[in-house]
Amino acid sequence: MTTQEPPGACTSPNPLGYKVELGLDRPIKLDCGVELGPVTVAYQTYGTLNADRSNAILMCHALTGDHYVADPHPITGKPGWWNELVGPGLLFDTDRYFLICSNVLGGCMGTTGPKEINPATGKPWGLSFPVITIGDMVLVQARLLDHLGIETLFCVVGGSMGGMQVLEWAQSFPDRVFAALPIATAARHSAQNIAFHEVGRQAIVADPDWCNGDYLLEGKRPHRGLAVARMAAHITYLSETALHKKFGRKLQDRQSFAYGFDADFQVESYLRHQGSTFVDRFDANSYLYITRAMDYFDLAAENGGVLANAFAGTKTRFCVASFTSDWLFPTAESRAIVQALNAVAANVSFVEIKSDKGHDAFLLDEPEFHATLTGFLDGAAAHRGLRPCKAG
Amino acid sequence: MTTQEPPGACTSPNPLGYKVELGLDRPIKLDCGVELGPVTVAYQTYGTLNADRSNAILMCHALTGDHYVADPHPITGKPGWWNELVGPGLLFDTDRYFLICSNVLGGCMGTTGPKEINPATGKPWGLSFPVITIGDMVLVQARLLDHLGIETLFCVVGGSMGGMQVLEWAQSFPDRVFAALPIATAARHSAQNIAFHEVGRQAIVADPDWCNGDYLLEGKRPHRGLAVARMAAHITYLSETALHKKFGRKLQDRQSFAYGFDADFQVESYLRHQGSTFVDRFDANSYLYITRAMDYFDLAAENGGVLANAFAGTKTRFCVASFTSDWLFPTAESRAIVQALNAVAANVSFVEIKSDKGHDAFLLDEPEFHATLTGFLDGAAAHRGLRPCKAG
Repeated sequence: MTTQEPPGACTSPNPLGYKVELGLDRPIKLDCGVELGPVTVAYQTYGTLNADRSNAILMCHALTGDHYVADPHPITGKPGWWNELVGPGLLFDTDRYFLICSNVLGGCMGTTGPKEINPATGKPWGLSFPVITIGDMVLVQARLLDHLGIETLFCVVGGSMGGMQVLEWAQSFPDRVFAALPIATAARHSAQNIAFHEVGRQAIVADPDWCNGDYLLEGKRPHRGLAVARMAAHITYLSETALHKKFGRKLQDRQSFAYGFDADFQVESYLRHQGSTFVDRFDANSYLYITRAMDYFDLAAENGGVLANAFAGTKTRFCVASFTSDWLFPTAESRAIVQALNAVAANVSFVEIKSDKGHDAFLLDEPEFHATLTGFLDGAAAHRGLRPCKAG
Repeated sequence: MTTQEPPGACTSPNPLGYKVELGLDRPIKLDCGVELGPVTVAYQTYGTLNADRSNAILMCHALTGDHYVADPHPITGKPGWWNELVGPGLLFDTDRYFLICSNVLGGCMGTTGPKEINPATGKPWGLSFPVITIGDMVLVQARLLDHLGIETLFCVVGGSMGGMQVLEWAQSFPDRVFAALPIATAARHSAQNIAFHEVGRQAIVADPDWCNGDYLLEGKRPHRGLAVARMAAHITYLSETALHKKFGRKLQDRQSFAYGFDADFQVESYLRHQGSTFVDRFDANSYLYITRAMDYFDLAAENGGVLANAFAGTKTRFCVASFTSDWLFPTAESRAIVQALNAVAANVSFVEIKSDKGHDAFLLDEPEFHATLTGFLDGAAAHRGLRPCKAG
């Protein structure tokens, strides 16, 4: 992975992304009290930063996402998670915006996390890595923007855990966020969602190859546990309707039951595939740390129990979006955000998109959702006075 | 566990239950084609069989239940799963009805299953046990009734997988079922439910102590995998509202985050407890077999794709009950059953109980639900001409 510095104005993106070391002189003070530095941040950019540095959009990835928004994933070769939305003339118009996405703190695609080497010991951090929060992730992103010389973001956008980061940005750096797009997210992780995360974590730590977190030192990988964690989580990303439409009770490569424990049903085969491919690209300890950060997220609790306090006096323009069939981050969670924003007279629009695709809808082809994003970005860009960077 | 024969008329129950060997002369032909026999069946009875043997109620237990309906569980010491409903003058009035509940085929509380010894080899069956179906479970129950000299059941009742057995009874032995009470169940297991089961099974087989199913021979127990399976399943038994009300984001024995992977949240601690206590009373291979039986259940598919065909000409009186917050077996599944019954002009009533307790509501204190059961049983008993067995 390239460690060269970021692009100047109007350069092309580097498909492998960039890396930068931050906090060399000023460590990053985490919520847990630990001072971390240096912190390596892996990131990607698309488009061109304009002369007055006013067209930057920070894209925040979800739990198992990374900064390869619109590039082939370097491990799986699959298209980026918003590949169809990024490019010249597309929703995230690279002729107009400068897009930045960084792998989150605690991640496993280049940014400092439990899989990386602790410079103090020369060994992988493992469980000696400090427990992090969504606030810590955002703090590191803010340092990255400092490094890139971007004072104010035109927009911060993200779905699911990415949406949590959007909300955290709006709370912690209100003056640096012109517009905010939290999608399919919540201002606090629910008991049910904590429960699902805990199942995933217990699946990982139950795998003897996890080696109390030291599997990299031991030359092992807790693939079985991580695959089970992924399978359980994956169900929560889809809707019952989507699973029914996609698979129903259809059998896999057979006409009748095999009366055994192979994958008789297509849905079993699909889930097993989701589990087994995930382990090639994701680190088990990262999964522990990032799910933990989500569990800890509770913007109201950080603001005296009143969510509206998180946004008092905000000048940011918000667009909150949810999906009807999302039962992981149901619309009620988005409504709570909107009500808090309304309580402080914030500029907020809210759209509940009708979709049967469940939580994953924010990553899928949902024309009404995309039209909503486009409309909001266009309106905000007009207010911001943004025009295409390239002539013609 | 006692192997003495069942009680005659008006005897007291035996708190340890009974065991009987069936299929000694005539093996039980399973859906997979295997002929199984002898089959040991562990069962329990409450109340007294009347002179004309017309007051028997078969209670069908759920996935992880057993025949200790109203006795302390012999391993955990906890009260039976419908302990509050069974007794003189109670909902299941032991002065009026003769209640029977048997541990299902494939179970692990005394009935023949993968944990028991295969008489042909002298070793635990393990994965050499044939894969079973809900139909097989019901066939064994029918043999038990033959043995007890009960031709016709006054009622078959059960929730969840118990409800599947109720439906199977009504289809396979319509002349032996006067009344049927399928609760919180479905006529076919959904893709999402198969998916959750598959996660549980993969958690079990991922545990090296599962030993390819031979853990009993190896002196091991896949406790970690089975606990993860239970944790994942347990979330599906509750509603999001129930989890929120019961735990919310409350911390466990601490005032603030520990910034670690211990159980910070009460919901984590609760789930871990559910997992760790489950493994003391349940067998991992039984979990594989019984979940598989549920996955295979599809009454419509067995009847040319038309669910109504399963009930054509039925004279059984049905009461179908569901719970508003049950997302594992949502009301839509019960409606499908009711619609099929209506299509064949069956005698059916349907009640959707308002409850925030999720799927587990059928095991909990739900007065409206209990009033429904009482009303239906009273009406059916009047039609059947049943009076209390004991005078005064």
